[in-house]
Order: sequence, then structure tokens, then C-alpha cells
Amino acid sequence: MKKKLYGIIPPLVTPLKDNDHLDIDGLERLIEHVIEGGVHGIFILGTTGEAQSISMKLREEMIERTSEILKNRVPLLVGISDTSISDSAALAQKAYEAGAYAVVAAPPYYFATGQPELAEYYEELLKLLPLPLFLYNMPVHTKVSFEPKTIKRIAENKKVIGFKDSSANGTYLQAVMYTMKENPDFMFFVGPEEMTAEMILLGADGGVNGGANLFPKLYVDLYNAAQSKDLEQVRTLQQKVMQISTTIYSNGKYGSSYLKGLKCALSVAGICDDFLAMPFSRFDEEHRAKIKEAMNNLNF
Amino acid sequence: MKKKLYGIIPPLVTPLKDNDHLDIDGLERLIEHVIEGGVHGIFILGTTGEAQSISMKLREEMIERTSEILKNRVPLLVGISDTSISDSAALAQKAYEAGAYAVVAAPPYYFATGQPELAEYYEELLKLLPLPLFLYNMPVHTKVSFEPKTIKRIAENKKVIGFKDSSANGTYLQAVMYTMKENPDFMFFVGPEEMTAEMILLGADGGVNGGANLFPKLYVDLYNAAQSKDLEQVRTLQQKVMQISTTIYSNGKYGSSYLKGLKCALSVAGICDDFLAMPFSRFDEEHRAKIKEAMNNLNF
Amino acid sequence: MKKKLYGIIPPLVTPLKDNDHLDIDGLERLIEHVIEGGVHGIFILGTTGEAQSISMKLREEMIERTSEILKNRVPLLVGISDTSISDSAALAQKAYEAGAYAVVAAPPYYFATGQPELAEYYEELLKLLPLPLFLYNMPVHTKVSFEPKTIKRIAENKKVIGFKDSSANGTYLQAVMYTMKENPDFMFFVGPEEMTAEMILLGADGGVNGGANLFPKLYVDLYNAAQSKDLEQVRTLQQKVMQISTTIYSNGKYGSSYLKGLKCALSVAGICDDFLAMPFSRFDEEHRAKIKEAMNNLNF
Amino acid sequence: MKKKLYGIIPPLVTPLKDNDHLDIDGLERLIEHVIEGGVHGIFILGTTGEAQSISMKLREEMIERTSEILKNRVPLLVGISDTSISDSAALAQKAYEAGAYAVVAAPPYYFATGQPELAEYYEELLKLLPLPLFLYNMPVHTKVSFEPKTIKRIAENKKVIGFKDSSANGTYLQAVMYTMKENPDFMFFVGPEEMTAEMILLGADGGVNGGANLFPKLYVDLYNAAQSKDLEQVRTLQQKVMQISTTIYSNGKYGSSYLKGLKCALSVAGICDDFLAMPFSRFDEEHRAKIKEAMNNLNF
Repeated sequence: MKKKLYGIIPPLVTPLKDNDHLDIDGLERLIEHVIEGGVHGIFILGTTGEAQSISMKLREEMIERTSEILKNRVPLLVGISDTSISDSAALAQKAYEAGAYAVVAAPPYYFATGQPELAEYYEELLKLLPLPLFLYNMPVHTKVSFEPKTIKRIAENKKVIGFKDSSANGTYLQAVMYTMKENPDFMFFVGPEEMTAEMILLGADGGVNGGANLFPKLYVDLYNAAQSKDLEQVRTLQQKVMQISTTIYSNGKYGSSYLKGLKCALSVAGICDDFLAMPFSRFDEEHRAKIKEAMNNLNF
Repeated sequence: MKKKLYGIIPPLVTPLKDNDHLDIDGLERLIEHVIEGGVHGIFILGTTGEAQSISMKLREEMIERTSEILKNRVPLLVGISDTSISDSAALAQKAYEAGAYAVVAAPPYYFATGQPELAEYYEELLKLLPLPLFLYNMPVHTKVSFEPKTIKRIAENKKVIGFKDSSANGTYLQAVMYTMKENPDFMFFVGPEEMTAEMILLGADGGVNGGANLFPKLYVDLYNAAQSKDLEQVRTLQQKVMQISTTIYSNGKYGSSYLKGLKCALSVAGICDDFLAMPFSRFDEEHRAKIKEAMNNLNF
Repeated sequence: MKKKLYGIIPPLVTPLKDNDHLDIDGLERLIEHVIEGGVHGIFILGTTGEAQSISMKLREEMIERTSEILKNRVPLLVGISDTSISDSAALAQKAYEAGAYAVVAAPPYYFATGQPELAEYYEELLKLLPLPLFLYNMPVHTKVSFEPKTIKRIAENKKVIGFKDSSANGTYLQAVMYTMKENPDFMFFVGPEEMTAEMILLGADGGVNGGANLFPKLYVDLYNAAQSKDLEQVRTLQQKVMQISTTIYSNGKYGSSYLKGLKCALSVAGICDDFLAMPFSRFDEEHRAKIKEAMNNLNF
Repeated sequence: MKKKLYGIIPPLVTPLKDNDHLDIDGLERLIEHVIEGGVHGIFILGTTGEAQSISMKLREEMIERTSEILKNRVPLLVGISDTSISDSAALAQKAYEAGAYAVVAAPPYYFATGQPELAEYYEELLKLLPLPLFLYNMPVHTKVSFEPKTIKRIAENKKVIGFKDSSANGTYLQAVMYTMKENPDFMFFVGPEEMTAEMILLGADGGVNGGANLFPKLYVDLYNAAQSKDLEQVRTLQQKVMQISTTIYSNGKYGSSYLKGLKCALSVAGICDDFLAMPFSRFDEEHRAKIKEAMNNLNF
């Protein structure tokens, strides 16, 4: 049974010319590319969108430009995660004005909160939001993970419509889904593409997968295979997802190799610029050659 | 395609009368209980078996007694994880003499090693082992996680026959399985019961699930449903697994609530003593009452 | 031998009426209070100043108001830590226009960088700064710690004039000071007040101590005692610092107890409002009573 | 005011020929070397002694041999840290029979305990101990840190005579000392040599410093300088300690560089074998050459 939102919702990269300017042509090509690939929505200003690395002003511009290009062909989700509740509210207002479907907010990521403090934060934030809210769990960056009972408490407010989990913790996501079982409309989206298929088989609603920037149709096909319980097809497509994960996202050291690899591959594919906002920067020629080679080996 | 070992292999609790004495009658009842439930093997002296909390002498006694009771009805796996390679080797020798099928070793857990050091440790350990080896990933306790390429390096030695992962990280286990894809006999077992079904659907070989001490048939049924791709049955049984997880393992504070809840439930069920070796201790009457109530609510 | 900056530089709390408004009267009282206490500078928009929790706009207002009230009576340091390098640069520009002495920047705190990435980030940031820079190490919040050799690399740029360490790691700070020993003008300030005296005895230049908002003279006296090698006086005053630390900062659970306790005590003392920006909030009456009692017990 | 134990108590390395055999001649040379250097006690089977990496049997032999060589010339402290309370008690019995002054126990390091569980563990352990006990805080290896109030609770038993802290956290150790201020006989020893001097200036009783295996007199001199409040001498000797720390302990990657560097330097100095028990191994020729060079540069 499908819910209001489902399927593959790419966390769009933010095409950049430099720290302060969007690559508008790249953004247009990227949006057309994922729409053609059949995605069920798009999510801007998430972790993959480097939202934290660009200025408030540029985040607002990204909302406007995306909305103009997208023209509501699929639902638009907008990340408003910030350490300042006022700045999050300002971004939500901008998203509302741009016709977004919902906003997405991770916990504040400078101070780590206790669970009751986390619930109180969202209760306060919800008062300021003109749109429905997805909770966004991203503990590797925020240092805080929502306990299942905290999600249940926050979701007593009906404006909270779903949960995007990027913890990669399979046990945890099962616990959250079980805890929310009496709320059948509540939506579950999985961040890590490597474990999206298995979670859909067990009841999740879709994936917010970075690789869908690059190969939207692959992730849509994988979603459809899992939805229709075609396990053979799931296992076949999963191999391709793993090939991408282990060859495109794993060059270079540090946690940044995913972002650098993804933007580099999008640039190799002629879709958008590979500029990354500080504190990161694009791959050098040596790493770019490896990404090119990995792209060539992905003969699908 | 089933491999040499597959299915549900409970990580047996170690029934204790006190810090230095086994509850032999309880051990006998426990082994008969899981065999009746249809388990495909048993694993002693793992984390659920409190191996680290009991003396070397008592670990050796546990190997002997289990072997005598089990009489090879299903394969016996023996945990030899220790911070001293010599003591690990001594346990492996005892396991060999007792007719065990294989041994299971987590990384040394006092000093955290770098990845090359980890590989060298296992290469040295393998020289001392008279039995095949499962690698055991348990980063929450050992502080170290095997990188996929480290597993590949260690598994160049054919005595390394499989990998038991208790990281709960779905992305990680997918990466390990993909990395080992050219080694089709290599076996993958999942520790956390909450994510075992989904991993079997995607190609894992079985589960080393603590709850199978208590309800072996449930976990065997779940394994069979996943093996036969009966997704409806998988989702139904998964709900029961989650009910156990959220009501039996989640009383009390701290990481010990799983072990305390499991042993308490086994005592409530009349199977074995609920004594826990230091640094833990059995639930008090208040918590025991909650476990009893949770058991009553599990009407299956 | 004193350097250009030295002594006690309180990390000023940001007096607030609500999430979006300064308590201007409180700010004025607070600044007069610390100046009277003899502090050697003030530092605004640090962790104690809840910089991350207030909007960009309010941070800019805090810079202006502080400058107007302070009138250069002591040097003004301004925190510009942000995840967006452009927003950090904008704050630095505002600080420059307000006549600040220097800016202070912690690593970006959403994405955790590798050490070379960290160095490159600061090298880029320095190009955008109209003022000298203090590096600010705060790993509990930023997840990243400067390796000593990274500090040495960044400090090759002479605009980098010092290091403020809030790691609480005594071994680490010694290693940084030793690594920088050929740069005698480079300044070292200690965040945690509990270990400031001992570090000054071993060569650090001063303390950026939260408690100096409340009891500026105590911390100035402690600095002077350490500077003049009066060990008896150091040990006596250290007891008072520890009494504050263990009674004012330790009510309530969670990491927020320091901030909540400090602002509550400032409110009890009639200096400024105890409103905390989200995700935190002021102590309830029960905790406020404990702070009052703790204040009464501080008979100095 | 000196307490019963004070000064420099080297955490002795365990000289090894291989994983199962002591380098007895090396042990004898090492003990004579540190005694000649003026140390105030010795501590065997700590982290620097690789206690966890050697078998129970070899740990018992180390106790016996050390006692025979030492002949009570200075007090002997024996590490009994283990994950099994019974094996810890067995080591304590052996220490008692060998005439040790006290035993030293870190928290169990496989399962991480909550604070009440930690207190209960020590309360149980104390019943089994024939000797006084030092608590040993080593969170990087044990994952658990004693909260100050837990130390206070455990130390209600008068057999608990002191605390050895290897957390490197200056704020924390101040908080512990303040919490225990009404127990003037309770002793505080500092693990990290880089911060020992500053803590002695503020009231700690001594250092358990690895470098005192190599240069016992240097650490004794530093202790004496701090005891006699000779700050100039403290700062001078501190530079030497930092030179050792940054050149001997920092070759190679990983946390093991301290142990590998220390044992290599002892071998270069002709004192004992540089064999390390698994999971570590001695430096290769390239790294050994660097240690030799670093030793040559230490012209003191």
C-alpha cells in the first residue's frame, strides 16, 4: 500500500560554480536528468546537497531556482537543518513560498541534545513551520540519534509526516518502524542506497539515495523490483548499486570521498560542475581519472 | 544455494550458578530446547554467552559440557575471542578436542588495532588453530571494525570460512558481501535478529540470534520464510521478533538490558538460572515482573 | 613574558530575551561587570555565547552592540565559527567594521574533515579575513581536533596569532605548545577553567573561562597567582573554581547543564536574562532553587 | 605532604622473547635500571606492560619473577585488570603471595557498564582482594570512565587507596580530586607523562609514566622539581619529556606507536627485547632507525 510519498527521491547535489554561486545550467540539466529517470520526488539542501557548507543566501536561491525549474512535476522536499531555529524557520518560509511539499530537518548539530531536549526543540520548531515535516536522522554528522520513543513523541503532532534515516543501522530502523506501527500513514525513507532495497522489502516506503543523481533509472528500477517482490531482480540490481558504492564513492580518503566521487562522476557525465563548497574541494586529475575508469566499468 | 553452514545458530547463553559454576541442568535443558526448535547449529562463548566475563577455566568447562550434551546433533561453533592470542589458541585446542566444527574469533578488545595490525593478528592466530575460523565483527565491544578489504586479505587463508557480523550496519554488511563475491563458499551470518530476515533476503546465510535461545522455532520459521522468499510470512514473523526486541531486551538502563532480559526470560520460562557473571547481575523483582508480563503478552 | 594578549578573556554569554532578541540591558550590565572584574579582553559568539543557536542576523547585532558598549576598553575577540565559509567571512567583516581585535574560528562542524582538508579550509578562510585569527579547538562539538602538525601548517600564515583549546586534554595541549615552540609570539588560551591554572604554570597565556562571566575577579586573581608563581594562592583559588564547576555547572542532565547553570546563575545574580536559545531552555524553578543555594554556598 | 605512596612509579614494560616467554635477563636489567634511576615504586601488568596481550599463565610468571628480582626495594603494584572477576581475583592472590603492596584494576573492558554497575563490580571485586586497591581509569581502552561520584562511592571501602588516571583529561582529574577532598589519604597518580608535572603542582601525588622505563632519573627529577615548586626546572625538564613524547612515541601509525616506540627504544638502549605480544609487533628496520636517531638527538 503506497503512501502519499514513496519511491526514489534523490537528495540533489547543489551544482556550484564557487562557494557563492550556483551552476544554474548544471542544476537544470540535473533536474531534467532525474525527472527523465522516473524519480518520485526530489530533496534539496540535504547532506548530499552540502546545505551546511553554503551560505543562508545561497540556500534560499537554491530553493527558488529549483522550484522554477521543477515546476511541480514531482514533489519537492527542502532541507532546513540548521543550528539556529530561526534560520531553519526562515528557510521553511522560503520553501513554502516556493511551493514545496514538505521540509526536512535534522537535529541541531553543534550542541548535542538529550532526548527530551530534542523533542522540545522539534515541538518549538513545528510552531514555526508552514509545511509538513520529515525528521532526518543523520547521527554521523549531528552526533545525536532520535530514540524511537522520541520520534513517537514528536510525531504526536500531525505535521510530522515521516522519517528519513541515514544511520545505516538496520536494527535501529526496524525498531523505529515497529514503534510507529500504529501510525500507518507515517512514511519511512532510507538514506544509504546500499540498504534501501532490503528495507523496502520489509516495509519502508522508499529511498533518498545519492546515486539517483547519477543513475536515477537504476534506483527507480530497484525500488520497483522491491515493491513488486521480484527478489531475483532485486539481487541483480543490488550488485550494480554495490559496484557504484565501492568504485565511485570510495576513492580518496576521509568521509568526503562519497561527495567528491559523486560530484566528480556527475561532471564526467556532463551533467554539472564538480566544485565542492569548503571545507571540501574537487578531486584532482589523478582521482578524476579513477572515477572515469570506474564509470567506464559500469556498463549499464 | 545453501552452504555448509546455514540457518539459525543461537549464540547460547552460559547458564551459571555463580561467577565460577555452570548451571549444568540448565545447560542441558537449554540445549534440548533449541535442538527441539530446529536450530541448525549452536555457538557457545560469544557475547551472549558472557565469555569474557567468566574465567578461562570455566570457558573450558563450558566447551566440554556442551559437547557432551550436544553429541554432535548439530554443528558446534566455539568462541575463542580473547585479548591474549595464546589463550585464544588454548581455547581453540579445547574446542578441537571436544569435536567442534569451527571456532569464532572477534578482534582483541583491549588495544584497538589498525587494519594491517588486525590482519597480521589473524594471520598469526590462524597458524595456531586446529579448526576452521569465523571472523566475528562486534565493534561496539571491540572498538574495531573489519574493513571489507581486511576481511578479503585474511580470507586468503582457506581456513577462514565465514563472517559473523554484529555491527547492525546494513550498508557495511552489503559492502562486505560484495567485496567477497568471488568467494561463493564464504558464509555470512547476521548477529542482530532485528535485521536478519532482510539480510537473508539479500543473500546472507543465516542468523546468530540471541532470541533463538528462548524461541528457537520462531527464528527457524523466519529463516525458512526468508529462504523460500515468502515475504508475507517474513513480515508477519518480523513483527514477533520486534515485539521480543522491544519488550524483553529493553527493560532497565544501559547496554546490559539485552543480556539481563534474555537470561531473566529464560529463567521465567523455567529453562535456566538467570545469574549473570560480573560486571552484571540479574534483574531485581520489579524488572522480573516486567519480563513476566512481556512474556505473557507474547502469545505465540 | 607576556604576549600581545594574555590573561582572562571571558567567553561572553549572549543575553537573550527570546530566540531572536538580545537582552541589551543585560548585555550592558554583563560587560560592565566583567570589566570591573579586571578581565583582559572579551570573546563573544563562542560556544558559551550560543553563537550557533542564534541567527546570522542576531550574531551580527551582537557584534555591533558589544562594540558600542565596550568602546575598546579591552580587546574584543569575535567568534565566526560556521559551517559556511562565506557566512564566516561575513561575520569577520562585521567584526572588522566593529573594531574587533581578532576573530576566532572553530572547524566546520557538520562535515568532519581530514587533517589536510582542515588545513586547506583555514588557508582558504584566511584569504577572506580582514583580521588576525585564533584557531579554536572544540572537538566535543565539532568532532574534529587539530593535530599539532596541522596547527603548525596553518600558522605559517602570520595572520594566525593563537590557539584556543577547549579539548580538556592536557597531553594534547602540551604537544601543541611543544610543536609551536619556535614561534614565541603564538598565543595559547585554555577553555576549561578547571585546568587553566595548571596550564598557565606550564606556559599558557591565559584562560577563556565561562565562569569569568559570573566571577571575573576570581579568575583574574587565579591568573595573576599563576603568573606570579604563587602556588599556595593558586591551590586556594583553584578550590573555588572547582566548587563553581561542581555545583553551578552540574545540575540537570546532559551536556547543557554548564550553559543552563551559568545563565541561571547570572540571572540569580541580577546580571542578565536566563533565556537560552533553542535547542536549550532555561532551568525550571526546581533547578533554579539549586543554583540559588549553590550561589549562597559560594561565600567568596 | 607526602602520602604512603608518591613519586614516579614506572608502568613496567613486560620484556618478552615471544608471545609465551619472558625475557628474564631483560626484566632484570630493566628493574635494576629503574631502581638506579630513583623510582619510588614499580607497577607491572598495566597497559604499558601489555597485560591483556599475554596469557594468564605468563601474567602470573611476571608477578613471581618481578618480585624475586625486586626484593621489596620499592613497593610493587600489580595490575589485575581483566574481564573476568575470577581471573582478576586469581591474579590478586598471586600478587599477595609475591609480597605486592597493592593491586590496580581498570574496569572490565568488553562489556561497557553503567556507573551503578561499575560500582557494584568493584564492590564485588573488593570482597575477593587480599590487598589494597588502586582504581585505574583508562577510558580509551575500556570505553568506560569513572564518574567522580562513582569513585567516591567505591572508595567508601577503605581498601581503595588511590586512583590512577590515564584519561589525559585535565578537567576530569581536577573534578575527581575535588570530589575526594575530604579523604586526604587517597592518592592520585597521573598516567600521561606529558601532564604529570602540572598535576603534581596542583596536588597530585605522582606519575605512572611509561617513559620512566627508559629515563627513570628524568621523571624523578621532574617529580622532585614539581614537589619543591621549582617552576623553572619544571619547565626545563618538561621540554625533555615533550621531546621524548613527540619523537619516540610518534613513529608509525595507530595507537600502538607509543608501545612500539618505547620497547624499540629500550632495545636500542640495550635494556630488553623489543618483542611485542600480539596484536602488535616490533618496529621494522626503517622505524628502528628513526628511533635510534631520536635517541641520539636526546642529548641528556
